Amino acid sequence: MAPASSPLPISSESDEKYANVKWEELGFALTPTDYMYVAKCKEGESFSQGKIVPYGDISISPCSPILNYGQGLFEGLKAYRTEDDRIRIFRPDQNALRMLTGAERLCMTPPSLDQFVEAVKQTVLANKKWVPPPGKGTLYIRPLLIGSGASLGVAPAPETTFLVYASPVGGYHKVSSGLNLKVDHKHHRAHSGGTGGVKSCTNYSPVVKLLLEAKSSGFSDILFLDAATGRNIEELSACNIFIVKGNIVSTPPTSGTILPGVTRKSISELARDIGYQVQERDVSVDELLEAEEVFGTGTAVVVTAVETVTFHDKKVKYRTGEAALSTKLRSMLTNIQMGIVEDKKGWMVEIDRCQG
Amino acid sequence: MAPASSPLPISSESDEKYANVKWEELGFALTPTDYMYVAKCKEGESFSQGKIVPYGDISISPCSPILNYGQGLFEGLKAYRTEDDRIRIFRPDQNALRMLTGAERLCMTPPSLDQFVEAVKQTVLANKKWVPPPGKGTLYIRPLLIGSGASLGVAPAPETTFLVYASPVGGYHKVSSGLNLKVDHKHHRAHSGGTGGVKSCTNYSPVVKLLLEAKSSGFSDILFLDAATGRNIEELSACNIFIVKGNIVSTPPTSGTILPGVTRKSISELARDIGYQVQERDVSVDELLEAEEVFGTGTAVVVTAVETVTFHDKKVKYRTGEAALSTKLRSMLTNIQMGIVEDKKGWMVEIDRCQG
Repeated sequence: MAPASSPLPISSESDEKYANVKWEELGFALTPTDYMYVAKCKEGESFSQGKIVPYGDISISPCSPILNYGQGLFEGLKAYRTEDDRIRIFRPDQNALRMLTGAERLCMTPPSLDQFVEAVKQTVLANKKWVPPPGKGTLYIRPLLIGSGASLGVAPAPETTFLVYASPVGGYHKVSSGLNLKVDHKHHRAHSGGTGGVKSCTNYSPVVKLLLEAKSSGFSDILFLDAATGRNIEELSACNIFIVKGNIVSTPPTSGTILPGVTRKSISELARDIGYQVQERDVSVDELLEAEEVFGTGTAVVVTAVETVTFHDKKVKYRTGEAALSTKLRSMLTNIQMGIVEDKKGWMVEIDRCQG
Repeated sequence: MAPASSPLPISSESDEKYANVKWEELGFALTPTDYMYVAKCKEGESFSQGKIVPYGDISISPCSPILNYGQGLFEGLKAYRTEDDRIRIFRPDQNALRMLTGAERLCMTPPSLDQFVEAVKQTVLANKKWVPPPGKGTLYIRPLLIGSGASLGVAPAPETTFLVYASPVGGYHKVSSGLNLKVDHKHHRAHSGGTGGVKSCTNYSPVVKLLLEAKSSGFSDILFLDAATGRNIEELSACNIFIVKGNIVSTPPTSGTILPGVTRKSISELARDIGYQVQERDVSVDELLEAEEVFGTGTAVVVTAVETVTFHDKKVKYRTGEAALSTKLRSMLTNIQMGIVEDKKGWMVEIDRCQG
């Protein structure tokens, strides 16, 4: 997908450095940007080059597998603007690989790793004035892989659409000191042999009702337990979970029912770098309740401390704030992302300014 | 939704009784028809009247909950043409009620029961020349309720679209004597607290891979076991299951992980009518393997005999053909649907020919 064959749009507004956005007011909601990337692929073929088009509604068959049977995957990653005005994205290859795994699970044709990364770069570059100023937020990038075409029966899609759109965002949770979680002992998010281990759209709408109910009771989010035993913690509605006790940081293993988070993987590495022992293993609710610290990780939430966990009638409070490991890890990660410290891990991918 | 305010289209072809379809070649695949029904509703409001529009692609936000988070429900029902040229639909109120239940589970706004039934009737009437001649097939009707509008986070949809399209269809399975099922002892279809009990799009795409694998090994379909114990049978990829032993017909209960099928309910009633005892209860794999007869029920498959079940290395053969209860029940049901015997149950809803 050579950039030359998919020329980027030259807008009359291209001289403006920033879009007209009240950066201070950004939350995690859609602010439509100028452009999106779209590529299509027939069943049995490969994706050829896509193109940048104006952001807007797409046209799709009412009989498409995404509308009828939930055949869709999404990804989430972010572009960051540094103080010296470089625009960079975080580990897009990891999202590309996860989409490949998900596509295999849902019998879809994915873009190649290079196509994925190139599409993300093109989308960011086309929307670069929507990347918030340093410290004011990030450009959230949402790649979608959806079963388009028309298929009446439950079957692989006759056509697949790969689409990337973006929106500037601020914080995901409106919280100060940390999240207040409710452990759900009745509903599960995923089951063995299901799609919990890939970023399938089917993992999310079933959770909305439970999330609304928890929020109406004053909780920030839900913590799900495994469906097999009901004893081990899995993840929140949209992020992974870690517990800390002494020098040991523990997080549930990616054995098929939890999402292999890119932030989860990166934070594990950073914790090891500063001398913590990181264990990927089953973590029981009992252990959770006895932890010193609990935090969530994800592209949207970054690293967010958990202040309390409520399980049945028991409510436990955890360390948060400056003394918390989560605060330190969040700083370590965002300092790399924002270019405040050198990226020695090769995690950041620069968007080539020359192409703009 | 008064028909007067949503006038039906008058096509120049409206005098033709039948569309140009090779009725003998119909399988379960999309044959696009002329019209579909579309209604939209903002969050917090109710559906007002929708309208019949030409069948074709719809326009939807790339940031919609159906494309990103699988927020969608579907239904399936059929219209039948009788020998005396009446067009009738089967128990649409049951599909409407199921959509109401599903919408509650997925935090969506559903159409009212009357709106649902009226929309189905209008769709059939607008496409009446696509209802196959008696004995050649049926008009399959697919109502969809999808989260449209734009919402970046996992949340209820800011807009909901109710859409009904239709396609003439023949048989669902290409089988002669009966289905050859594989019992899947590794993957599950649903889990407690999930969406297995409603017709959510999220129940279907996760099954495609398993279905393709089973088909490539020569099986017609998969039989799933419950996720909680792995011992009890639940349903096939897209239909309910019954077993027969002596005078007892048994089918798993609708306790949240299997779909409460309209055909399942109707067949239970018909079996009772002819003196069978029908039990809705947990049915173990062991019992399945010892049954005399096994069959599936669903709108698409109607009543379809199971010829063999394979569980690990064990393969069991069941009664099929003229002597089978499933053959008798299928005839009883289709005779009512096709108007060959009188509908004493009030199951059939006539499409008023005067409106055409």
